[in-house]
This record gives sequence, C-alpha cells and structure tokens, in this order.
Amino acid sequence: MSILLSEINEQPVAMERALAGGKDAIAELVAQIKKREVRYVILAARGTSDNAATYAKYLLQLTVGIPCGLAAPSVHTLYEAEVNYKDALVIGVSQSGAGDDINEVMVQAKKSGALTAAITNTEGSRLSEIAEHVLFCNAGLERAVAATKTYTTTLALFAKLAARWAGDTALAETLWRVPDALRTELHRLSGRAETVAHSLTHAERILAVARGLHLCTAIESSLKIAETTHTTTQAFSSADLLHGPIASVPANTPCLLLLPNGKTKPMMLEVAAKLEGRGARVLTVSTDADAALPLTDTGTELLAPLVDILPAQLLAYHLTVARGLDPDNPSGLTKVTVTR
Amino acid sequence: MSILLSEINEQPVAMERALAGGKDAIAELVAQIKKREVRYVILAARGTSDNAATYAKYLLQLTVGIPCGLAAPSVHTLYEAEVNYKDALVIGVSQSGAGDDINEVMVQAKKSGALTAAITNTEGSRLSEIAEHVLFCNAGLERAVAATKTYTTTLALFAKLAARWAGDTALAETLWRVPDALRTELHRLSGRAETVAHSLTHAERILAVARGLHLCTAIESSLKIAETTHTTTQAFSSADLLHGPIASVPANTPCLLLLPNGKTKPMMLEVAAKLEGRGARVLTVSTDADAALPLTDTGTELLAPLVDILPAQLLAYHLTVARGLDPDNPSGLTKVTVTR
Repeated sequence: MSILLSEINEQPVAMERALAGGKDAIAELVAQIKKREVRYVILAARGTSDNAATYAKYLLQLTVGIPCGLAAPSVHTLYEAEVNYKDALVIGVSQSGAGDDINEVMVQAKKSGALTAAITNTEGSRLSEIAEHVLFCNAGLERAVAATKTYTTTLALFAKLAARWAGDTALAETLWRVPDALRTELHRLSGRAETVAHSLTHAERILAVARGLHLCTAIESSLKIAETTHTTTQAFSSADLLHGPIASVPANTPCLLLLPNGKTKPMMLEVAAKLEGRGARVLTVSTDADAALPLTDTGTELLAPLVDILPAQLLAYHLTVARGLDPDNPSGLTKVTVTR
Repeated sequence: MSILLSEINEQPVAMERALAGGKDAIAELVAQIKKREVRYVILAARGTSDNAATYAKYLLQLTVGIPCGLAAPSVHTLYEAEVNYKDALVIGVSQSGAGDDINEVMVQAKKSGALTAAITNTEGSRLSEIAEHVLFCNAGLERAVAATKTYTTTLALFAKLAARWAGDTALAETLWRVPDALRTELHRLSGRAETVAHSLTHAERILAVARGLHLCTAIESSLKIAETTHTTTQAFSSADLLHGPIASVPANTPCLLLLPNGKTKPMMLEVAAKLEGRGARVLTVSTDADAALPLTDTGTELLAPLVDILPAQLLAYHLTVARGLDPDNPSGLTKVTVTR
C-alpha cells in the first residue's frame, strides 16, 4: 500500500493519540491565557498548517469570542519589521517545526511580550524550543509529502484547546467521538472515492467550495488535489465565488461542495443549484442520501472539518494513482519547505 | 470611450482628491488611536476592498509595527458570534458602504469597545454612519462594475494613515508624488498593455505572482482579469507557489510577475527563472528596460502597490474588448454585492 493511503487510514488512531496526549499542555496554556488576559490570537503557519490555522481562526472566534488573524511571515523575514505582539497569543503551526519563517515570527512575538504556543508533530524541533507551550500532534512520523494525519490532528488539538478555553465540556466530549466518525467515514468512502476519482481522470480544473468554518476544508482540499495530481484547483468561499468568479466556471467543471449540517448548509445548497444551472458538475460532500461523497456527522458543526477533509484526501490519492503518478513523492515538492 | 477605461484614466486625479480630502479625518483618527492605546488592527472587507485591506495588513505592520488581521464576516452574519474587539482598531472597507456583512462586523466591533473607522467612497452610507471615523475616497461615482479608482484611492488613504500614524513625514511627502507616477505609468503602458492583451486572447489560465507587501497586487490583478474577461486566474504568493502549485503550471501559461524595486525583487527574479525553466510565459512588471510591462518607480517600495496594479487593470480592459465582451458590465456581476 502507498504511504499516503496508509497515512490517510491512520488518522483515527493518530487523532486518538493527539487527544489523549495534550491534556496537561492544554490546561497549562489555558491557565496562562487567562492569567495574561490575552486579547487576540495570531496564527503563524504555511501550506497545510496554514489551512489548519484557518480552521482555528473561525473556531476560536465562534467558541471563545476572541479576534484571530493569520500572520504574514514576510513582514519579519523579508522586511525585518518589529511588530509589537503584547497581549497576544501567537500560535506557530508546523508539522516539522523547522520552517525559518514561522520560527522568526515566534521569536519576534516572544520578544515583544506575546504568550507563545506551538502545534507541531516534531518533538525537540526548533519551533518547540522557541514556544513556551507545546501541543504535540502525536501523529507519528509522516512520510508522504502530502500532509494528511498532521492536518487532522492539528485540527483536533485546536478543537481541544477551544473546548477547554471556552469551558465547553459538551464540545470536549463530542470531540472524543470524532475518531470513530473518521473510521465510519473511511469505511463509507471506500470504493466511492475511487469511483469518483476515476471519473475525474481528464479534469483540467477542479473547484472546492465551502463557507465560514468550513473554508479550511475547501482550501486544504484544493491544495491536496493540486500538489498530488497536478490539476489546476481553486478554492472559494461561496460568498466570494458568487461575487464574480462563478461567471468564469466552464460547463462540466467538477466542483467539490462542502455541505456539512449547520449554518452554512442553506447557502451552500443555493450555490450548488447555481453551479448546476451553469452546467458545472457538482460533487456534494454531505450526510444526505444522494450525496456524491457521503459524510459522517460529527454531532456539531464545529467539528465537521475534522472529518470532511477525508473525501478530498482520498480523491487526491486515487486520482494520482489513476494518472500514473507517485502519490508519495509528488514531483517538484519536498516534505519540509524552508521559506525566507 | 468605455466607462472602465475612463475610470482607469481618472486615477491620478481621483488620488489627488483622496489625498487632499482626508487630512483632518486622519489626524483625528490617529489622535484617537494613540489616546485609546490600540493594540491591533482588524480589517473587514470583501472583494476588491479585501485586496486593499491585504495591502493595509502588510503596510501597517511594516510602518507602525502593529499586528493586523482580516476579519471573517460570517462569524457575525452566519454564526452570530459575540467577539470582543476591545483594544482593537476595526476598519471597514467598502466602496458602497452598503454590504450587510461588513456593517455587521462594524456594529459588533463598536459594541464591544473597538475604535472603528471606515474607508468608503459613499458619503452618508450605512458604513459611514456606523464608524466613528470616516476616511472618504473622494474618487467620484464609480460606474464600471470592475472597481479601479476606488481601489487605488483606498490604498492611498491607508498609506496616508500609516504615514501619519508612524510620524513618517518622508513617506507622506513621497505619497504626494504618486499621482504623477500614475500619470507617467498610464502614458508608458498606453499601447503596450493593449499589445500584451492581444497576445493573451486565447489564454485559458493566467497567473499573477507577487510576494510580501505586493501580494495585494497579485490578488487584485487576478480578480480584475477574472471578473471582466472570464479567464481562469490564480494569484499566488511566490512562497506558496514554490511550495507546490508551480508543479502544476502548464507550459505557455501567461504569468504576470510583480517585480517592483525592493526587498521582494531578488526572490521574485528567482521565481521568474523557475517559471521560465518550466516553459511558462513570464510577463514581468518592473522598472527594468526589458520588462514586458513597464513600471514607474514610486520612490519607496511601500507605495509601489498604488501604481503596479495599472498593468492588470489595462490588461483586463483590453482583453475584455479583444474578446468581444462588455468591459463595463461583466455578465453575472453586480456593482454592489450584498452578502449575508
């Protein structure tokens, strides 16, 4: 079996380990957040970790009502600006913990008085040395270049942090049921994702569309399919898609639509109808019986992104194989990217 | 002459009006920023205004060293979350001032104790009523659906705010010379942009690439060309492009590369070489003699985005005409988009 597929299948177990491991670290971080009266959160990340940070940007605003923004690392690396992060919680997210750019944001944040935390899969990494608090993914070594289990374990750690910070015990309990939802989802997608992937073999452009809390899934789906299959992919917030780009979607374009139960679903159904009206090929990811790709309900919209990335991960894998490419080593990519 | 082209050509005059008008409003806003000890900035915007906000996200961090992030309007409109914006400056950016989503962010921000400001081209709009401080674009009525003069005047107001806030009189003085740089640039691009646009008539996919402070130009270039010409366009930070998507750029793909003088240029030249090595058609926007599209130097990298969007605006116009489309009324779009 390819490494990528085996890592996709490892996600239920990896998430259980991530959830079991982070207890004390998260409790200590939340204690410091309250003691230091943190006013806002800045998330520093690149690539797949940046997509996980996008989940956190929505999740933390929804659960603890704190403003969150994404860092612009070049402000520090290229321009060497001094930014004052006093009263901020700055969270660096990196599976390797080795990216110079993220580490430079963290050094600057700490120097100017921020509370700093890291989410990483590499104990002893430079990032884990810089940050005062380290949440460990515990996903096991990730060998495929396309990140999968480090993405979903990072999301799980953010959810656990949010539940603890908000004092939301129901959310914390529901979170423990997500690994089983992942197992169910992997089972239900088996075969189905492969069939859909085969129907996409000649697709030149694939869109992924979501809104709100689920935007992270659209952008991560788009990245995953692009980096493994070399397809032109684009992710859109449905609000932005309707603003203009929908006019340039050619007929028959496959469009992956994220339709988890919750606040975004009614608007997303309208988007599905509009895309179908333009002749696009809509592939829905939902719990509905007629979904192109079935989705397992996590019990709360807040946790849906931990599961609804699986269809795109599996599409990326099967489409790569269908095109005769190597899913474990996409050409032109390396596992650790060092940006300055 | 089409409305779009006449509005593109109005930009030097519109920017002079924007710079002349905002003096007192900016001085009062900066006085309040200092009095209230603002700790961070949140920018709330959609579409072209969101691209202008991306400029501000970099500019304010570089000039006044304050963390900046972009709001996620759906947090308020769809999820009705209560976010505490105490100690923040929240700036709503909207040419019409009529978007419900941005206005809802502003209402929530004000309610929770933020200092609020608006940048808008519509006096008396709902946004200008909600915000405590209003910076007026003074661009004159914008009739073409594709925004041009409201974008560059918004950038000019952000630059004026940054100069005043930082107490950087050299930057303030240099800013006054930008309208003339726009005039020079329009003159130099005349004919050249049309010739390049004609060579793109059959392009199915166009990329726009920049880094750091100039990312705003790449994303606005991409949006402008997509919404008028119905081409598939994608904007990339060069750091993200090299992370993976470069592997999926087919030979002959036209790639607009932003190469203003400054910190990002060395890395962007490497990206240009890599794209050329893959057979892409690189269209450079730079002050170099061999640039595909000539660029007029603004005297400081900080102000380059006020000028370097002109090539894409003119490409969008000429490509639309070359394809027999109506540049003033792109199909499927409306001037004011109301998102909830």
